[in-house]
Amino acid sequence: MTFAPIGVLRTPFPTLADCPRNGRALVPPPLCRAVVAPPFLEGLRDLEGFSHLILLYWLAETRPALTVTPRRSGVPRGVFATRAPCRPNPIGLSVVAFEGFEMPGTLLVRNLDCRDGTALLDLKPYLPRTDSEPAARIGWMA
Amino acid sequence: MTFAPIGVLRTPFPTLADCPRNGRALVPPPLCRAVVAPPFLEGLRDLEGFSHLILLYWLAETRPALTVTPRRSGVPRGVFATRAPCRPNPIGLSVVAFEGFEMPGTLLVRNLDCRDGTALLDLKPYLPRTDSEPAARIGWMA
Repeated sequence: MTFAPIGVLRTPFPTLADCPRNGRALVPPPLCRAVVAPPFLEGLRDLEGFSHLILLYWLAETRPALTVTPRRSGVPRGVFATRAPCRPNPIGLSVVAFEGFEMPGTLLVRNLDCRDGTALLDLKPYLPRTDSEPAARIGWMA
Repeated sequence: MTFAPIGVLRTPFPTLADCPRNGRALVPPPLCRAVVAPPFLEGLRDLEGFSHLILLYWLAETRPALTVTPRRSGVPRGVFATRAPCRPNPIGLSVVAFEGFEMPGTLLVRNLDCRDGTALLDLKPYLPRTDSEPAARIGWMA
């Protein structure tokens, strides 16, 4: 299956080494932009009024691995039990705060942790009824 | 960019017409299975102990559209302001309750709303600190 970008993410992190551990590691999280390409602008109608979005993007520059050793724990973990980028299908996911449109096609968002220039694949409205599990248990990360 | 399935989702919904509106529309949500292919089994290590996962999958059988008319509202909406499957990159996302392994590579999950046989692209642990926004506002859906 083949996917093509719908736009690009602009962040203050020019290289992978500049990226924070997660989108909430910097306080306050810096303002970022999701720039949607002109052919897809009509799909953005009715987004105003959602406070949070889910962004899916392509984690280029990663080599797939089935285990990864998180910096903090030092123990190898199955990649599907982590949020590491080196996944078989390198699709990144961030729940971002949506602060409105800067101009048509340019969304102001916070909580991104990816490299500047990352290809955007999809954006979805965040729905607390199906997406929010505040009491979820976090296994080995606890 | 090209992606390949890591496995398949088994649900009680043989056709699109059988699928519920969302993964929590049926009470209780039926038991489903995420079957991960043998080459990827090592990546599942350390998943025990997470109560919820995020599954990404391929919404085959959809024709992309930039506006959709949800059954309930009757008003056309921008596709990115909906969770409709007919997206430019048809990647589906579900936050599922994880009930453990039935056997190696077969995960028992609830809250899926997709067709039986859907191709699985990725699974990630659900982390409430970055993924849970219980007070998110839902725009036109309110």
